[in-house]
Amino acid sequence: MKALIYDGQLKLARRYPRPDPPPGEALVRVHLAGICNTDLEITKGYMGFQGVLGHEFVGIVEECAATELVGQRVVGEINAACGECTYCRAGLPTHCANRTVLGIVRRDGAFAEYLTLPMRNLHVVPDNLPDEVAVFTEPLAAALEILEQVHLPPTSRVAVLGDGKLGLLVAQALSLTGCELTALGHHPQKLAILQERGLPTLLADDAPGIKADVVVECTGRPEGLAMARQMVVPRGTIVLKSTFQGSADVALSPLVVDEVTIVGSRCGPFAPALRLLERGLVAVEPLIAAIYPLSEGLAAFEHARTPGTLKVLLRVT
Amino acid sequence: MKALIYDGQLKLARRYPRPDPPPGEALVRVHLAGICNTDLEITKGYMGFQGVLGHEFVGIVEECAATELVGQRVVGEINAACGECTYCRAGLPTHCANRTVLGIVRRDGAFAEYLTLPMRNLHVVPDNLPDEVAVFTEPLAAALEILEQVHLPPTSRVAVLGDGKLGLLVAQALSLTGCELTALGHHPQKLAILQERGLPTLLADDAPGIKADVVVECTGRPEGLAMARQMVVPRGTIVLKSTFQGSADVALSPLVVDEVTIVGSRCGPFAPALRLLERGLVAVEPLIAAIYPLSEGLAAFEHARTPGTLKVLLRVT
Repeated sequence: MKALIYDGQLKLARRYPRPDPPPGEALVRVHLAGICNTDLEITKGYMGFQGVLGHEFVGIVEECAATELVGQRVVGEINAACGECTYCRAGLPTHCANRTVLGIVRRDGAFAEYLTLPMRNLHVVPDNLPDEVAVFTEPLAAALEILEQVHLPPTSRVAVLGDGKLGLLVAQALSLTGCELTALGHHPQKLAILQERGLPTLLADDAPGIKADVVVECTGRPEGLAMARQMVVPRGTIVLKSTFQGSADVALSPLVVDEVTIVGSRCGPFAPALRLLERGLVAVEPLIAAIYPLSEGLAAFEHARTPGTLKVLLRVT
Repeated sequence: MKALIYDGQLKLARRYPRPDPPPGEALVRVHLAGICNTDLEITKGYMGFQGVLGHEFVGIVEECAATELVGQRVVGEINAACGECTYCRAGLPTHCANRTVLGIVRRDGAFAEYLTLPMRNLHVVPDNLPDEVAVFTEPLAAALEILEQVHLPPTSRVAVLGDGKLGLLVAQALSLTGCELTALGHHPQKLAILQERGLPTLLADDAPGIKADVVVECTGRPEGLAMARQMVVPRGTIVLKSTFQGSADVALSPLVVDEVTIVGSRCGPFAPALRLLERGLVAVEPLIAAIYPLSEGLAAFEHARTPGTLKVLLRVT
């Protein structure tokens, strides 16, 4: 099968072996997949991953022991858990000590004609959701993870830093709580996507005086934490969503003096993401910058890497 | 009066003006005061403070509008709050936007014959507590602040990094919850203070495999956070207690992947600290390295700066 792989270099493989689903797993024929910043970081060495890239997808189940799933259109949670370790037993399979992660940790990903995932990871997509919407389930779930971890009262002041793909989803998802949210970024045309939905936005350079109880860092850059630090009030919370290769220089004592809480936040729940998408409460189609066929995957990555680009999708089958 | 001041240099002033308590404040004649790492950091430029150093003390109220306080032996909370800002009204006076802080922010401190503090900051010391114990109220309160901020179930695994003054208090205070606590440090003779009280300890170099739900960073060093990161489990919490001049190089993505929470923690509640000291549940006298008269304050600082030194006290009057 065709697959976009990373083995130290990004390559389009034309005869990559089609995966054979092990017991408990389903074979999914991928329709559409999304390129995430994490994929771009992996091509810089992040996570030391080699194999088929990609973890955002929608596809059709072709083979699976659970016959009711065969032929269904699905999205899939990306952490394949052992079901037996302390974390799995504590109901935290995304932190499974033995997990593989689709296209990120020891498991081939979604930029290929086929992938396999445990059946229990799959969620059937409602018929009325087009592929171009359903493919955003995974990143929207990651945005909702913030609300799994942090209590956001409707009266709280929230700032979302970064107007990239994730920032635009986070701002929309958190704003549904009724909180007083400001989205900050560097790109007026991206912030306009939020403005059109009634969300207040600011260019980051105009924001020196902004203060917030909760600041969500989605800039994807090491400097993001220092910006968040400037904005968060004493006893406030900074949520870190960015993953990137490398480290940041952080002044720790101001965090101690102001008793700030920092919360790292990663993968989230798919079911609520599908519910919000089905009700049209989070706009995702304006985030699509381009759709490439998988055979033009290298060009798609070039496009996705261009600063300021929103979501680049790969049409697989 | 005599006072130990910092004005870019540490100096013993022999004729420093005796403070005049403004309305609402009490004049306290200092008996005994403790040198904290924060004092040492201030002499490296931390907080940009100039004036009389010192914020850990016990003394006698000499002048005060509340006549029942006059003649009482007291300890004092170090944040002098305005009582009117958002934080004060929210019950968070230690985060008052307009606060001064004894010997740290725009308020002369305790290494002098007299200090002033708002009357509401003072706590009467039970008669049976010697000065040498009561002087530890402030740092023990800072240790208890961790329990104000973080829920520590009795079944949790806790690691305390650092066997300095604060680490030894934190380890003792947290261990009272019944949690499974390990204290880690570099000094066998300091860890022995905990061992004698039945607390498990480890030399930090022997601890590569230790895992904990909550790791408290009391090393006072920028590397402390990276050590804590190695030990904390996914979804665990790192509590930062160290304040120091400068910044640290931090790999942020592992915090995101493991959804770690970092909580900065500063000043804490005095009343519970006095209750624990009165019941003898936290041993502080073994932490005393030396007691100098205030007139030998420069030598006392030299001693306190010597690596491995525990609490150096100043006998003032």
